Amino acid sequence: MKHLVSMNDLSREQILDILDNAEAFASGEEWQPKNKMFATNLFFEPSTRTKTSFEMAERKLGIEVIPFETGSCSLLKGETLYDTIKTLEAIGVNTAVIRHGEEAYYQSFIDQLNIQLINAGDGCGQHPTQSLLDLFTIKQEFGGFNGLKVAIIGDLSHSRVAKSNHKALSALGAEVLYSGPPQWFDSNQLNSNFCEMDNAVEIADVVMLLRIQHERHESTSFMTTEEYHSKYGLTIEREKRMKKDSIIMHPAPVNRNVEIADCLVESEKSRIFKQMENGVFTRMAVLKSILEQ
Amino acid sequence: MKHLVSMNDLSREQILDILDNAEAFASGEEWQPKNKMFATNLFFEPSTRTKTSFEMAERKLGIEVIPFETGSCSLLKGETLYDTIKTLEAIGVNTAVIRHGEEAYYQSFIDQLNIQLINAGDGCGQHPTQSLLDLFTIKQEFGGFNGLKVAIIGDLSHSRVAKSNHKALSALGAEVLYSGPPQWFDSNQLNSNFCEMDNAVEIADVVMLLRIQHERHESTSFMTTEEYHSKYGLTIEREKRMKKDSIIMHPAPVNRNVEIADCLVESEKSRIFKQMENGVFTRMAVLKSILEQ
Amino acid sequence: MKHLVSMNDLSREQILDILDNAEAFASGEEWQPKNKMFATNLFFEPSTRTKTSFEMAERKLGIEVIPFETGSCSLLKGETLYDTIKTLEAIGVNTAVIRHGEEAYYQSFIDQLNIQLINAGDGCGQHPTQSLLDLFTIKQEFGGFNGLKVAIIGDLSHSRVAKSNHKALSALGAEVLYSGPPQWFDSNQLNSNFCEMDNAVEIADVVMLLRIQHERHESTSFMTTEEYHSKYGLTIEREKRMKKDSIIMHPAPVNRNVEIADCLVESEKSRIFKQMENGVFTRMAVLKSILEQ
Repeated sequence: MKHLVSMNDLSREQILDILDNAEAFASGEEWQPKNKMFATNLFFEPSTRTKTSFEMAERKLGIEVIPFETGSCSLLKGETLYDTIKTLEAIGVNTAVIRHGEEAYYQSFIDQLNIQLINAGDGCGQHPTQSLLDLFTIKQEFGGFNGLKVAIIGDLSHSRVAKSNHKALSALGAEVLYSGPPQWFDSNQLNSNFCEMDNAVEIADVVMLLRIQHERHESTSFMTTEEYHSKYGLTIEREKRMKKDSIIMHPAPVNRNVEIADCLVESEKSRIFKQMENGVFTRMAVLKSILEQ
Repeated sequence: MKHLVSMNDLSREQILDILDNAEAFASGEEWQPKNKMFATNLFFEPSTRTKTSFEMAERKLGIEVIPFETGSCSLLKGETLYDTIKTLEAIGVNTAVIRHGEEAYYQSFIDQLNIQLINAGDGCGQHPTQSLLDLFTIKQEFGGFNGLKVAIIGDLSHSRVAKSNHKALSALGAEVLYSGPPQWFDSNQLNSNFCEMDNAVEIADVVMLLRIQHERHESTSFMTTEEYHSKYGLTIEREKRMKKDSIIMHPAPVNRNVEIADCLVESEKSRIFKQMENGVFTRMAVLKSILEQ
Repeated sequence: MKHLVSMNDLSREQILDILDNAEAFASGEEWQPKNKMFATNLFFEPSTRTKTSFEMAERKLGIEVIPFETGSCSLLKGETLYDTIKTLEAIGVNTAVIRHGEEAYYQSFIDQLNIQLINAGDGCGQHPTQSLLDLFTIKQEFGGFNGLKVAIIGDLSHSRVAKSNHKALSALGAEVLYSGPPQWFDSNQLNSNFCEMDNAVEIADVVMLLRIQHERHESTSFMTTEEYHSKYGLTIEREKRMKKDSIIMHPAPVNRNVEIADCLVESEKSRIFKQMENGVFTRMAVLKSILEQ
């Protein structure tokens, strides 16, 4: 694997291989690249989880991290993203982890790169390491994917997570259901996988809530946050009707009392902070795959 | 010691223990935690001294530092400070050093943290590592605290330093005097410890000047900076009347020619840059206490 | 060498010594300072290349880097640059790499510093490590400087590169020509070294293009970028008339299709990305010279 920009880059076997490596790292396995390696994390959109998770994964693998402040780089002097990345390549950086607001920002130049690119989110496009950590969290919980019902609930139109996860989960044998406000679905999603919220929480093994991305919505005014919570949120009442051994997931940051009741964020069924913990191991596995190349 | 958020957390013995460790580090002692440890420094208010001092202390102890840019984190997407800190905890960070504009920002959630918290300044509240480095600088100079007169001069109402230092200095046997504009004192301070400026500089072993925090004052217009310097500043003339072997301290950044005459900042009696040097050793001692826990 | 703020600090022998060390580092030589050393990079103006290049050079030499965010330091609280640098010195930083918008920002205080200063650009003043990497790139290509014709083309009035390079190239035996819009030249330059653009590209061994610094021009409106490209840019047509074995250089960031045709940036004659690669080795050599002091 030279780059990882989309879940579509990965075969079923490659996914399972990354999940196995993540499991090994979670169990304490250590691995370091043979030569000194350098990574840079370029986050053009705000991030706490993904950025610090990559920073941690890189350091755990003994990779040197060259800092890059997107607020004070030469892009401000009109330099293109391509020239910026080629600069890092020339300077000797081996891997660039990039989050950028533009969908498929990498498409026009990825074939010209020798530096290895990991996409950490491209607008409303993909976020493959988030998908992989979600898959790892599910596999860790249930041992596999076959026959599992995964309900993805909420803001599907703006969600990188939903797009990345659907295909992979299906390929691995899980059944994906969608729920949430019909305004946020395309007609294809509505026809094939839609499930009423109150039904979804009862039949799902995994209730995967999506974050309302206020920063990407031009208008969310069709509904108050209280209405959203009551209609499509995981309320205290709905949680009680979830299956035994089912789990709650959310990519975070959580809008507490909107997508999920405040007191459920750290409840017994919640794997929300576990997902973050697993994110480090998953990113270590991805970096290993890339750097062994 | 699990966290250090206030000087009130520390017993007299714990303070002396930290000062001893700081002394050892200043003398070249080396110490590293047994396992690889990770720290993050979250500064929500501008800082040069405190932040770089922690960064240096962490590296000298072999602690890996996970960078955190407060200007581009998920707090911008509405995430709470609690969720941000719990995220760092989930990712595997052992210690979070936090400066935040809100007094006692940690109070509502500190009992729920497994990550260890060091408060690097909470609004007009506490700044315990600054207090400890002040104490260390005094002890280094005078061998102890008994019978010393410490004059704290200036903007007491907004000073984290004054609040943190008073109690500790008293407990260690020093006598604390206050001076400065009466408008900035509460009635309790005015009654018990107030001392006229021209008297204070003559009787004090330690002249501890406080920074005028223009950024916290809604109005400082009752006096020009020239008037302030002439009435409450350490002028060239006042410095000449200081006791033999007395010293000048200031937490910095200094407003030159306001709290202190420009040419006195690096004069013989001044320990202002020595305080910064000592800050690194003191923070190494605090980190050691926390991480050995 | 205690500091490096200007090419004028360096003798011919010191320059050649740095170029030899850069060559050694480029060939894989390793060197580390005997004791643990600390560096800080303070960039008060946007930078990608120079900042990441120093960060890389420092890490390759095993130097610990103390991060410094110019957007959240105490300069915002009114602290002077001198006090900021003295703070870093007190904290134990050995070397400060500084880019600042003010020409000769260091002049008033450099004699008072114990910390070692490397100037990474001062307004329209000097940028010595850029000059050195340019010289290294030329030496790498041609083996030496004697008799070479170097045409420096473009925005000479705002160029740190032009000023730093002219004197050094002449001292090393190269002939320097200038070309570009006469409005940007002083009368001295116009008289002695001026050469028409179409002539310059034909006789030069090195075509060194300068970046139009839109951010420093109050008015560039005397010409459109298309006009500039056609009159003073390295067009596809002009490149064809360049000498065999001649090379193209540019300090970057490049304004594509202004100073140089887009497709020439990574063409056979271009050493633009090679310059960036060489920048790391050159800065390693400069750091070695400074730290061995």
